[in-house]
Amino acid sequence: MRCRQEEIELFKYLKNVPLDRAQQDYMETLMQNGMGLKTETIPVQEAAGRITAAPVYARICAPHYNASAMDGIALDAKLTFGASETTPVTLAEEQYKQLNTGDPLPGGCDAVIMIEDVIEAGDGTVNLYQAAAPWQHIRQIGEDICAGEIIMLSYSKVTPSALGAMIAGGVTEISVIKRPIVGIIPTGDEIVPPTSDPKEGDILEFNSAIFSAMLKDWGAETVIFPIVTDNLEKICEALVAALKQCDVVILNAGSSAGSEDFAADAIASVGTVLHHGLAIKPGKPAILGYSKDKPILGVPGYPVSGIIVIEQLLRPIIEFLCKSGYDAARYTDAVLSKSVVSTLKYQEFVRVRMGYVGERLIASPLSRGSGVVTSFMKADGIIEVPQGVEGFESGSTVAVRLLRPEAELKNSLVVIGSHDPLLDELAELLRIEYGDVSMGSAHVGSMGGLMAIRRGEAHVAGTHLLDVETGEYNSAFIRKLLPNGGVRLVECVKRTQGIIVQKGNPKGITGIAGLAQQELRYVNRQKGSGTRILIDYLCSKDGIDTSKIYGYDREEFTHTSVAALIAADSADAGLGVFSAAKLYNLDFIPVCEEQYDLLIPEHAWELPMVQKLIDVLKSSAFKKRLDNLGGYELENPGTLREIF
Amino acid sequence: MRCRQEEIELFKYLKNVPLDRAQQDYMETLMQNGMGLKTETIPVQEAAGRITAAPVYARICAPHYNASAMDGIALDAKLTFGASETTPVTLAEEQYKQLNTGDPLPGGCDAVIMIEDVIEAGDGTVNLYQAAAPWQHIRQIGEDICAGEIIMLSYSKVTPSALGAMIAGGVTEISVIKRPIVGIIPTGDEIVPPTSDPKEGDILEFNSAIFSAMLKDWGAETVIFPIVTDNLEKICEALVAALKQCDVVILNAGSSAGSEDFAADAIASVGTVLHHGLAIKPGKPAILGYSKDKPILGVPGYPVSGIIVIEQLLRPIIEFLCKSGYDAARYTDAVLSKSVVSTLKYQEFVRVRMGYVGERLIASPLSRGSGVVTSFMKADGIIEVPQGVEGFESGSTVAVRLLRPEAELKNSLVVIGSHDPLLDELAELLRIEYGDVSMGSAHVGSMGGLMAIRRGEAHVAGTHLLDVETGEYNSAFIRKLLPNGGVRLVECVKRTQGIIVQKGNPKGITGIAGLAQQELRYVNRQKGSGTRILIDYLCSKDGIDTSKIYGYDREEFTHTSVAALIAADSADAGLGVFSAAKLYNLDFIPVCEEQYDLLIPEHAWELPMVQKLIDVLKSSAFKKRLDNLGGYELENPGTLREIF
Repeated sequence: MRCRQEEIELFKYLKNVPLDRAQQDYMETLMQNGMGLKTETIPVQEAAGRITAAPVYARICAPHYNASAMDGIALDAKLTFGASETTPVTLAEEQYKQLNTGDPLPGGCDAVIMIEDVIEAGDGTVNLYQAAAPWQHIRQIGEDICAGEIIMLSYSKVTPSALGAMIAGGVTEISVIKRPIVGIIPTGDEIVPPTSDPKEGDILEFNSAIFSAMLKDWGAETVIFPIVTDNLEKICEALVAALKQCDVVILNAGSSAGSEDFAADAIASVGTVLHHGLAIKPGKPAILGYSKDKPILGVPGYPVSGIIVIEQLLRPIIEFLCKSGYDAARYTDAVLSKSVVSTLKYQEFVRVRMGYVGERLIASPLSRGSGVVTSFMKADGIIEVPQGVEGFESGSTVAVRLLRPEAELKNSLVVIGSHDPLLDELAELLRIEYGDVSMGSAHVGSMGGLMAIRRGEAHVAGTHLLDVETGEYNSAFIRKLLPNGGVRLVECVKRTQGIIVQKGNPKGITGIAGLAQQELRYVNRQKGSGTRILIDYLCSKDGIDTSKIYGYDREEFTHTSVAALIAADSADAGLGVFSAAKLYNLDFIPVCEEQYDLLIPEHAWELPMVQKLIDVLKSSAFKKRLDNLGGYELENPGTLREIF
Repeated sequence: MRCRQEEIELFKYLKNVPLDRAQQDYMETLMQNGMGLKTETIPVQEAAGRITAAPVYARICAPHYNASAMDGIALDAKLTFGASETTPVTLAEEQYKQLNTGDPLPGGCDAVIMIEDVIEAGDGTVNLYQAAAPWQHIRQIGEDICAGEIIMLSYSKVTPSALGAMIAGGVTEISVIKRPIVGIIPTGDEIVPPTSDPKEGDILEFNSAIFSAMLKDWGAETVIFPIVTDNLEKICEALVAALKQCDVVILNAGSSAGSEDFAADAIASVGTVLHHGLAIKPGKPAILGYSKDKPILGVPGYPVSGIIVIEQLLRPIIEFLCKSGYDAARYTDAVLSKSVVSTLKYQEFVRVRMGYVGERLIASPLSRGSGVVTSFMKADGIIEVPQGVEGFESGSTVAVRLLRPEAELKNSLVVIGSHDPLLDELAELLRIEYGDVSMGSAHVGSMGGLMAIRRGEAHVAGTHLLDVETGEYNSAFIRKLLPNGGVRLVECVKRTQGIIVQKGNPKGITGIAGLAQQELRYVNRQKGSGTRILIDYLCSKDGIDTSKIYGYDREEFTHTSVAALIAADSADAGLGVFSAAKLYNLDFIPVCEEQYDLLIPEHAWELPMVQKLIDVLKSSAFKKRLDNLGGYELENPGTLREIF
């Protein structure tokens, strides 16, 4: 047992520094310590995308000689003066020189006549029916670039055409900003390199890959060092080695103040810790350290925390060292589809998925778990809840920092409602058939989907709600919750619900009644989901006391999660669809067939992306994919069902 | 002498196909020939930025075991039921297991209690003052990703967080779209590799560098082949070799129909020519060819033509082969500062520089020469004048295709007026001191600058206009042309104008009178420039007939161009500033001192970028740079001068 007193001692060191102060302190301290731009000279052909470190002066003119701009003849323009349609000028062979485009203008010549306007008159003489203006059809020296002129200013990005201009100006090498090299040191006894076959307790090392890709996007180069175990001395050695080779070092994990958190001590022993602990969530246990002019950032182990700490603390430094134009964050206003509750103590970063429903941009908060890396992958934006603010209510308008171009959001189909594995297949088919449509699903259950449609926050809701009195699916609930209509119900599939159990059914379950047996671990779906409503109904019908079912309160948000927990022997049974059981090769006790439909509001019906979805529903490709998933029956997917 | 009849024969083959038809024909023909996506399997760590070729399914759950989310103890939650502040539950050592964040949950446990809430009671027993909820502080299997779920859809770009999600999902390699390889074959007898010391007639090979950088930006890989001379057989050999190695081939230059233009014949002999000659300007002599499923594009030699042909014809193909989201062109409306005259016969692409002056976005056409690569470097946008349209008038509102983000245009200082080499230095100093300000200069002469200010199309105009009656600089003209005021005149420099002559003054020029001597080649500035007004005035004062000065009509737009032509022995003399003569190490016969000022409209005065310009004018760095240029006298730069 670890000593609690010691823990409290250690926790004292985690401060709560406001983010803006920490950012400012860090940059100022590093600048005072001499952190600055480094430059290197490289061949101009390799300079595409780089930032100039000094103005680039043309070494020669472009063109560097007077060049013919046409195929034709060169001559002294004065010889042609007076030529006209009626009184052509005839020139002898020695009075002109034939030349092609790009040829140098011969001495004594100051004009070029296009070959089409030159009429041969025999013996090498030619007739000209029009006078030539001096310097016509000649690309004069310096027409494009004059030697000595500045071709590119300092701190400018080398574009393709700038590359061409520099070569044309006789420039063969240029001084550019050296890309900072960021070393990433992953630490932790439990960390293992990426594999598809980890042991229990192994944590796959994916943070370095994420961080490295982010840093490269901002213009840095990266070096990922081998994994270091939780040992202060070894971490210090790794830091010293990385500092020799790199301009910036990231020490990943161990940045908190627990007994096995060595990052702060390690940084202090090779340099200085400026701040430890920020008033942000996620990302609190960050360490802002440095050694001389080099930042050493201690980054928490959870990927979402790490991404936010690196984005907030390191990005400004990388962009300073790269001298890349700081890409000012773009914000937009959006309507929250769900309340966001935050703590007063921290500035909180909440990832959201967004889409336009009608005229309104709707933002749906994604999972806030620090370990949920997919929440960043799916995010279209980030809501920054300031320190001292309790959060924002559902339906309120909030500022969202955009993570992708706003235009893309216009092609984002917002699907909120019941989960079914077929949604993934729909998204994939939309993607293959119509590359410009993306689909974002939030799994809030059938009831949640109906409410989202009612509030005008979704284009589509998956729903399978059984009216137990009539046996009717969906339409009864829609009539009750959306009595004014304004929606269309699109037939999707019949699917089989049943009890998912482990392979071979070791607990011998035969039906709902078997769920209350002792030693059986059930895993449930969340309240409001159609599947939860179904199991509640089935239990009440059979007179089963659900408080007797162990795990009835253990709530998952998808059929797949339920199946995954059973497959991992973390649970024994759960209600779900056949396709989820099949995915994990589990046994399945069918309970009933139900109708899974898609509800679409009238105002969204004519949207091209909605019509594309309907097309996909009707396609044979969809049928084929559902046959592969198993447990579905397709009658007339994509057709309208009566509601009223 | 080349046979004219033959030329006409050959020219017949250059068609005038409308661009949109050509684009469509080309894509359709290539698709019919089997052009399609290629894929490759790569390690997931190397996949950042790549496009998936198939959906990526998770191979394992993430987390792949039930993991503690905290440092603390794991136990069976049931043991804690009933614990409260007044009635703690005491657990023996064997009833719980100590664990750290990330550790696997031991069998029989279904909750974790944070170490802070665990009170030691001696002998390994602990007291708990609060009940634990089942599954609290546990990251359950599949919380982030469930095995079998789709992590990434097809045709999606691998972002940093997607990289992390895939590794977390046990994915070690993925199928991605193979980047098309584009081979670039430069041809031409006169083409030489980049150097700072080319011979007369040598053309530096910079097109390949431009094309390669463009193609890489769009997602392709490129191979630049060695330069091939103008020889049909050798060009065919190079094409065959390139087709073996590449998915797309660019044959650069020789694409017209002249006697030394072999591209069309070469393409026809290894494949098929679909179209030869497009109704676009620049870019007419393009060749749309192919061999089986591989495009072979014959591209004109002038860089601007080449850029436009590749952008219009190849970009859609590259983006198709890369399956990258086609980045729809963004357009904006802008007011033309100068008329654009176009031919009815072609669709014309006119590069423009842009900036916001007041509320209006002003577009100033850049040089339309096909050889002027800097016009692309400086361009902020492109006006597409449709086929059959004669052009657009000055002051009219036109649609401009943006080449850079519109936001950047807000920080673009529009300088229109008289040229002086000091403008480059001002731009550089603004860039160094204030990275976010860019400065675009159009050299239209002092009068042109005043008119631009009057029309509200510039923030700043450089001007040096002498009122010959009063000897006053600038203010007299401003009173005349801008009688309603609304402008401020900012003192800049006194500079020395004089006759720039070749080193050693071989023509023995001593003053203006010497310009009319026979065999002397003068080079002039354009009408409306202050320097032209000055030379006109000096000649009339001395009674010199300017029609007797050879080259008086040869007009250049900058002091530097004048000096460059004299340095290259393409002219003997020209009026210009001392700094231009010094740049080329030329001799200089001083003629007069003049006041060069900056005129700024009131409405622009308070703009931060204008105030930054004033700061730069007042800085010692500016003085130092002008001392280096030579020929300037600085009294109170940046201060206001009286006008009225």
